Amino acid sequence: MTASEIRALFAVASRPEVVSLAGGMPNLAALPMDALAVEVADLVGREGQVALQYGSAQGIPALREQICEVMALEGIRADPDDVVVTVGSQMALDMVTRILCDPGDVVLAEGPSYVGALGSFAAYQARVVHVAMDEHGLVPSLLHDALRTLAAQGITPKFLYTVPNFHNPAGVTLTVERRAEVLELCARYGVRVVEDNPYGLLGFSGAVNPALRSMDRDVIYLGSFSKTFASGLRVGWALAPPAVRDRLVLAAESAVLCPPNFNQMLVSRYLAGHDWRSQVKSFTEAYRERRDAMLEALETHLPDGCTWNVPEGGFYVWLTVPEGVDTKAMLPRAVTARVAYASGTGFYADGLGSRQLRLSYCYPTPERITEGVRRLAGVLEAELDVMRTFGTSPRPSLGRAEPRNGPQSPSPHTP
Amino acid sequence: MTASEIRALFAVASRPEVVSLAGGMPNLAALPMDALAVEVADLVGREGQVALQYGSAQGIPALREQICEVMALEGIRADPDDVVVTVGSQMALDMVTRILCDPGDVVLAEGPSYVGALGSFAAYQARVVHVAMDEHGLVPSLLHDALRTLAAQGITPKFLYTVPNFHNPAGVTLTVERRAEVLELCARYGVRVVEDNPYGLLGFSGAVNPALRSMDRDVIYLGSFSKTFASGLRVGWALAPPAVRDRLVLAAESAVLCPPNFNQMLVSRYLAGHDWRSQVKSFTEAYRERRDAMLEALETHLPDGCTWNVPEGGFYVWLTVPEGVDTKAMLPRAVTARVAYASGTGFYADGLGSRQLRLSYCYPTPERITEGVRRLAGVLEAELDVMRTFGTSPRPSLGRAEPRNGPQSPSPHTP
Repeated sequence: MTASEIRALFAVASRPEVVSLAGGMPNLAALPMDALAVEVADLVGREGQVALQYGSAQGIPALREQICEVMALEGIRADPDDVVVTVGSQMALDMVTRILCDPGDVVLAEGPSYVGALGSFAAYQARVVHVAMDEHGLVPSLLHDALRTLAAQGITPKFLYTVPNFHNPAGVTLTVERRAEVLELCARYGVRVVEDNPYGLLGFSGAVNPALRSMDRDVIYLGSFSKTFASGLRVGWALAPPAVRDRLVLAAESAVLCPPNFNQMLVSRYLAGHDWRSQVKSFTEAYRERRDAMLEALETHLPDGCTWNVPEGGFYVWLTVPEGVDTKAMLPRAVTARVAYASGTGFYADGLGSRQLRLSYCYPTPERITEGVRRLAGVLEAELDVMRTFGTSPRPSLGRAEPRNGPQSPSPHTP
Repeated sequence: MTASEIRALFAVASRPEVVSLAGGMPNLAALPMDALAVEVADLVGREGQVALQYGSAQGIPALREQICEVMALEGIRADPDDVVVTVGSQMALDMVTRILCDPGDVVLAEGPSYVGALGSFAAYQARVVHVAMDEHGLVPSLLHDALRTLAAQGITPKFLYTVPNFHNPAGVTLTVERRAEVLELCARYGVRVVEDNPYGLLGFSGAVNPALRSMDRDVIYLGSFSKTFASGLRVGWALAPPAVRDRLVLAAESAVLCPPNFNQMLVSRYLAGHDWRSQVKSFTEAYRERRDAMLEALETHLPDGCTWNVPEGGFYVWLTVPEGVDTKAMLPRAVTARVAYASGTGFYADGLGSRQLRLSYCYPTPERITEGVRRLAGVLEAELDVMRTFGTSPRPSLGRAEPRNGPQSPSPHTP
């Protein structure tokens, strides 16, 4: 394992004078805290002997049934017996990697990809082969290329790891047509699909895409209440075919014995007793307002040569900066200018991403987002000034025009 | 991984007509649920935006400071920076194994040993070499033998895993003199010590033994609030030297991103605002009463040829049954007779334990414990009857007398 960029981000994000566009912390301001206080007191008072006691490694049956109802919103038909409750979906991903991967095995993942997934893959010494996206998500023809190339080397990847909706960090969504293509390709090459879907219900249009799992029962699906309810409870899950589910339960026992009953029972009560779908709607309205503030600020303030995507849900804008700027090297100067972001290299296992960065609009207020982007623009202008002054600016590219600044989804993945 | 015996035990324990002496569930009846309900409501009402939000992988600083105060009761002087909060101490153990062991590495552990530890060792394909105990805990001369034998094969074990206080499942406690000997031997052979101490504050005399970590700062110490407060919150910790701590934090990020803020903050408030030491005292008084009931029932009901230990704290009696009885084969018949226990083979990585079983007195009432032991005695009598009737009773041992039934701590580890 290498030093974790997430840790540094949390540390930076904690300074109040810094506008953090780095972390992916959900906005909990709209949660009904008074009602939750009553709920949790009732949980302890009436069911404390169970809530505060050890539970089962697989999770409590009532919650697993409710999880199936949540997944039904994405077209998934599932048996609660095939659900394993985990300590956040990070644990589900870590368990899946543990049971499926030996050191040296290949995992396919979008490029860029979720930093926490790359962390688990590295922990089990799996080798990541990235497949690029465009504005419609993972590109099937490139996936086919990767599968063919690996097959020619005698390699069958252990799985494709994909975040189909409102991708972290790229912000894009896999189209329904491509979902079928991706599943067909993976089936043809004997590669499992691991669908990680923390943001699926956070679309700004209110529409919900059919999950890959709804189209193929062999898909391993990972879900989370971190973005639809409360990240601090650490309640996520995996839905897997029975043979994988059995191994997940055993792995979960080794890992944590059992997920906390208390947290599971609170989520279960919240789902049963509160209008959680309206709550999700009010979350997404807040996120849309913040996305709009970010996009407007990017258009207004960023220098020429920057491109970004227009997310239709979720938390993230993926930004490509002008050639010659290194987003990782620039980060300390940005923090000095009181704005933080996640530099792009953390989202690649292969060294790409130095011209990219991730901006999160989920947590700060619209005013802070605007101010943060203004500061970021100033930092970028200063970088470009230095490059021009000292002649380190790259020569103009031959044969292709430098992009004007503006939305262009997603950013190209130039090394 | 093989099928988990813990899972089966939880399933059995859930049938109300069965007296379960199998599980290690703490007795929460004495917890002040009304006060906790007020506390948890106040936590959500006043600090909900933090409690329900993502936290750091290492755990919240206030709780890490309080953990150092708890460990000070066992003579440990530690820096909160060296504490990593985990999802129960099972996660701490799993992380330690993850970062220290490669497949095929050797881990030393008492024989018998905690089944959850053996699960983690198996998950990372570590090879367990057991070292036997007597009534004073791990036997230093046998530890020395094991270290010498392995050294002769060019093998340095990655660590010694030990539960020094009120061992699970053997019930014995390592004497203070032996603690120094064990540490000296491990230092001489370059072997780390991992001290797992969930029961240290649960001694019936009220005295607290000095932790191995208090005598050697290189010891990795694992602690838990599962037995002193509430197992259902899943809050444990590791204390480790800085180099190991850094790797533990990174491993914890991959595993669960962060432990739940909510649970950590509730434990922190409980430690700060409640007389938790008096609460532990009332827990241990209940456990002593239950131990006494179990010991009396064992003396009264068990057939000749059974031996067991007299635990001075913790949850467990380790019982050796007459030769020829297989405790794993007998378990279904015991459950039919409405009593459950943990058969001994689950506590060994090497096939031993078929003549042993673990009885837990922590959870049932004294009356239920007495009834459970009475039922167990009936099952044992029936086994012995069948053996006598069908001539499968073993021949009398040559050269040694069969033990009369009675406490004799711990049971011999005959294959």
